Amino acid sequence: MLTINGKQFKSRLLLGTGKYPNFDIQKKAVEMAESEILTFTVRRMNIYEPSQPNFLENIDIDRVSLLPNTAGAKTAEEAVRHAKLARASGLCDMIKVEVIGCNKTLLPDPIETLKATEELLKEGFTVLPYTSDDVVLARKLEELGAHAVMPGASPIGSGQGIINPLNLSFIIEQSKVPVIVDAGIGSPTDAAYAMELGADAVLLNTAVSRAKDPVKMAKAMRLAIEAGRLGYEAERIPKKRTATASSPMEGMSI
Amino acid sequence: MLTINGKQFKSRLLLGTGKYPNFDIQKKAVEMAESEILTFTVRRMNIYEPSQPNFLENIDIDRVSLLPNTAGAKTAEEAVRHAKLARASGLCDMIKVEVIGCNKTLLPDPIETLKATEELLKEGFTVLPYTSDDVVLARKLEELGAHAVMPGASPIGSGQGIINPLNLSFIIEQSKVPVIVDAGIGSPTDAAYAMELGADAVLLNTAVSRAKDPVKMAKAMRLAIEAGRLGYEAERIPKKRTATASSPMEGMSI
Amino acid sequence: MLTINGKQFKSRLLLGTGKYPNFDIQKKAVEMAESEILTFTVRRMNIYEPSQPNFLENIDIDRVSLLPNTAGAKTAEEAVRHAKLARASGLCDMIKVEVIGCNKTLLPDPIETLKATEELLKEGFTVLPYTSDDVVLARKLEELGAHAVMPGASPIGSGQGIINPLNLSFIIEQSKVPVIVDAGIGSPTDAAYAMELGADAVLLNTAVSRAKDPVKMAKAMRLAIEAGRLGYEAERIPKKRTATASSPMEGMSI
Amino acid sequence: MLTINGKQFKSRLLLGTGKYPNFDIQKKAVEMAESEILTFTVRRMNIYEPSQPNFLENIDIDRVSLLPNTAGAKTAEEAVRHAKLARASGLCDMIKVEVIGCNKTLLPDPIETLKATEELLKEGFTVLPYTSDDVVLARKLEELGAHAVMPGASPIGSGQGIINPLNLSFIIEQSKVPVIVDAGIGSPTDAAYAMELGADAVLLNTAVSRAKDPVKMAKAMRLAIEAGRLGYEAERIPKKRTATASSPMEGMSI
Repeated sequence: MLTINGKQFKSRLLLGTGKYPNFDIQKKAVEMAESEILTFTVRRMNIYEPSQPNFLENIDIDRVSLLPNTAGAKTAEEAVRHAKLARASGLCDMIKVEVIGCNKTLLPDPIETLKATEELLKEGFTVLPYTSDDVVLARKLEELGAHAVMPGASPIGSGQGIINPLNLSFIIEQSKVPVIVDAGIGSPTDAAYAMELGADAVLLNTAVSRAKDPVKMAKAMRLAIEAGRLGYEAERIPKKRTATASSPMEGMSI
Repeated sequence: MLTINGKQFKSRLLLGTGKYPNFDIQKKAVEMAESEILTFTVRRMNIYEPSQPNFLENIDIDRVSLLPNTAGAKTAEEAVRHAKLARASGLCDMIKVEVIGCNKTLLPDPIETLKATEELLKEGFTVLPYTSDDVVLARKLEELGAHAVMPGASPIGSGQGIINPLNLSFIIEQSKVPVIVDAGIGSPTDAAYAMELGADAVLLNTAVSRAKDPVKMAKAMRLAIEAGRLGYEAERIPKKRTATASSPMEGMSI
Repeated sequence: MLTINGKQFKSRLLLGTGKYPNFDIQKKAVEMAESEILTFTVRRMNIYEPSQPNFLENIDIDRVSLLPNTAGAKTAEEAVRHAKLARASGLCDMIKVEVIGCNKTLLPDPIETLKATEELLKEGFTVLPYTSDDVVLARKLEELGAHAVMPGASPIGSGQGIINPLNLSFIIEQSKVPVIVDAGIGSPTDAAYAMELGADAVLLNTAVSRAKDPVKMAKAMRLAIEAGRLGYEAERIPKKRTATASSPMEGMSI
Repeated sequence: MLTINGKQFKSRLLLGTGKYPNFDIQKKAVEMAESEILTFTVRRMNIYEPSQPNFLENIDIDRVSLLPNTAGAKTAEEAVRHAKLARASGLCDMIKVEVIGCNKTLLPDPIETLKATEELLKEGFTVLPYTSDDVVLARKLEELGAHAVMPGASPIGSGQGIINPLNLSFIIEQSKVPVIVDAGIGSPTDAAYAMELGADAVLLNTAVSRAKDPVKMAKAMRLAIEAGRLGYEAERIPKKRTATASSPMEGMSI
C-alpha cells in the first residue's frame, strides 16, 4: 500500500488529467488506470468557480483523491496562492508543488520549491513537491516535512524515461516518505523501471493522454507499475558480465 | 495471440524449467507465469527414459506445450540428435535449436545453428532457433523456414537485458514469423522493453528461477509482458529533447 | 582559450592533486597533463602554515594557477573559512566551492553552495562552485555572479562518467560563464564526451591519480579533452537510425 | 604498433575516402588524420582503368597502404571479383571484405562473408573482413585465417557509436589478430571508447567526411584514438556506485 500522510492507496499510479483527446477518453483512461489519485492544474481548472463547467464532472469524486498542482507558478508565492485556491474548493487538502524555473526544460526551481513547501506545510497542507533528482535537495524537502518527494525522471512531457537511475536510487534509499517518480515517463518500460528501482509510485500524464490509444496505454501503465513493484519485491538476479547456463551440464552424458 | 506454425497461444511468456530451488517452487512459478510453452533441456531430462523420474510429473501436460531445447550441443549433429530424442518421447514436435559456440559467453554458433535448423525442418520439426542478434542471420533462418526466430538480448543468465535494441527492432521489422526474445532478460523492465519494441514473445528462465522469490517474479514477468505488449499496441509518445507542458498555460489568467 | 574572470588558459584540463601514489608521480602527471589550473583541498594542505612541508614544493607555481577547494566543508560558513585560509597564503584568489550534503554520495548541498558562493563573491573571490546537474540551480549560481559553474558528471571518485548528458547540455546552453565538468569522470572517453557536449573544461583527479599508470593516463586525458573540443568545433554528423553508404553505388556498374 | 599480416603501422586510424565535399578537403583530412591505411571502394574507383582520373592522384601512395573494399558486393563471388580487380592494379594486396546482406541496414551477410574470406585467403590476399559483432562468427573468421576482424559498432554511416560494448569486448578478448572497429563511429568519443575497450584500431569514413569541418574532425579522431589507446594501456579506475573522496579527510582538523 502507498501511504501518504496516513492515507492509504492500493494504486501506485497517479494520473494527470491534461491533454486527452476528449473527456470521454479521459474518463475511460482514468477508469482503466485504476488510479486513486488524480492530478490537475489549479490554474486550468475552474474548481473554485462553481458556475463554470470543469473536468470534475467526469470524475467519480468519491473514488479518487484529488491532487491539484501549481503548474504555471514561477515563484513560491504564486504556488501558495494556487494551493489555497484549490483548497478553497473544499475538494482537497493535498497539493503538488510545482514551481518551474526554466521555460524550455520546465525543470523545477529548487529554491522556490523549498520555500513553497515550507509555507504550505505551515498552512497545514499535505505537500508533495515536484523536484529535480538532486539528492540533497530531496532530503531537504523531506526534512522540512514534505509528505512525499517527487523527483523527475526527465523533462515534463519529454518521454525520455529515467535518465539518471543512480540519483533516483539514492533518493529512494534515503527517503522515509514515499518517492513518487514524476515527469518524463514515456512508456510502460519506464514505469516498470521506476518501480523496480524501489520507487513507491509513479505520476504520469502525457505518456497516457498523448499515446495513440490512451485507454489501452492506461491499462499498460497500470500493469507495468504492478509488474515493477512485484519485481522489486521479488528481488531480481544480479547482472553478470558473462553467461550462466540455465541448465548446467555437469554430470550429463548423452 | 502468438501463433507458431499454426498453433495459437494466449501467453507471450515462454518459461524455462531449470535451476528452481525445488520442484514445488517450480510448479508454482509455472502456474503463476501462466505460460503455455515450457522449455527444458533434452540432455537434462529423462523424458526418453520412462523408468526415470523427471520434471514432467510436476507439469500439467495437457495445459502446456513442451519446447525441448538442445542446450549442451556444440554441433548441428548433436542438436539434431537431441531433437530426435525429445520427439521419441511422443510429447512434443517443437524444438528450440541451441548450438553454443563459446563456453564463456554461451553465445550461439551461427553456422551450426543454420545447419541444425535446416536439417530439423527437413525432418518435419517445428523449429525455433536461438540466435545472436545478427540481423542477416535471423533473416536467413527465417528463409530456411524456421517457425520463429529467437534472438538473444544478452548472454544466457547474465541478466543484462537488451543490449542492442536497434538490431532487435531490425529483426522484428523484417520478420514474418514470430520474434521471441531469448536469453539475457533480467527483470520485468527488460521483458516489458522487449515487448514494447514489438517482439512477439519472451523466453526466460534464470530471471525467474533465481530471483529471491521465483513465484512472485513469475507474476511480475507475466504482467510486464502484457504491459509491454499493450504499450506496443497503444503506440507510445515520441521522445523529445525538451519539455512539453501537460497542462499548457495559453490563455490562462490567475 | 578558456577564460575565467578575465584570465586566459590554453589548457582545458583542470587537475586535482590528491591520492597519487607518490609526489614524483604526481609531479610527472601534472606535467604530462599540461594543466594550467591545479586544485587541492585547503584542509589537507599546509599552505597557510609556512613551517610545514606541502605539496607546492613539487609544483612550478609560476606556470600554474592554484584552485583551492573547500572539500570537507558541510556548511557555507565552513567553506568561507577555508577559502579565506587559502587566500591568506597569498598564492591564490580563486576558490572552488565544495559543500558536501551527503557523506555516502558526496553530492553537493545546493543551499549551502548558493550561500557560500554569494558570500565569497562579496569578499572578492573568483568563485567556481561545484554543483549537481540541477539546471535551474546552475543558472542561479551564474546569476549570483559565479565565474564558472562546475556540474558533476556523477559522484566524486565513482568513475561513472556522464550519467545525464541532457542536463549537462542544458546547463551548457544556458551558461555565459564557463561550464567545467567536475567529478565522476573515469576515462578519456568520458572526458572527450564532456567536451563534445560543449563543456568549456573538465576537472578530474581520481581518474588520473588512481589509474594503474597515472602519468600515461594524464596524457590520455589531455589528448581526449583536445579531441573532444575539436570534435565539438568540427560539428559531428547526426545520428541516424539506419545506414548510409559511405560509398554510394548509384550509377556504378561492374 | 598495429601489425597486420606482419606489416607494421604507427597509426591506429584507418580512414575511408568517400563522400568528402571535394578532393582538396579529402587530401587535407587524410593528412591531418595521419592515417597509414586508406580504404576505398573498388567499384567506385577506376584504379584498374589507368586511362581514367581517380582519387589516387590526390594521395601520396608511398606513404599510405591502400585497403580496397568490396562494398556493393552482395555475394562472395562478387566480393572475390572486386578483390581481384583491385589487386590487378598492382597497388595493393590487402582487401576489406564487405558483403552486404540488407539494403536498409547495410549489415553484413555472415555466410557470404565467411565464403569470400575463405576464398580470398586461398588466393593469397591479406584479408580483413567487415563483420557484425556476432562473437562466434568473428572467431570463425579468425580461424579461417583472416588477418584482422572488423566488427561494426553500429550501421554504416549511422553515427550511433558502439551499441554493444559487451560483444565488442568479447571479440577483443578472444582474438589474436587485430580487432578493427569498423562502421558506426560518429564522434571522437566513440573512437576513444572503441580504443579504451581494447580495440587495435578504428576504421571510419562518414564521421570525418561529413562533419561540418572534415579536416578538424580528422585531427579530433586522431587524438581521440591516441587518447583511447593510452587510456587502455594506463588502465582506468573501476566504476563504483558511490563516491570516494579524492582528498580523504581522515585525521584532518580545522
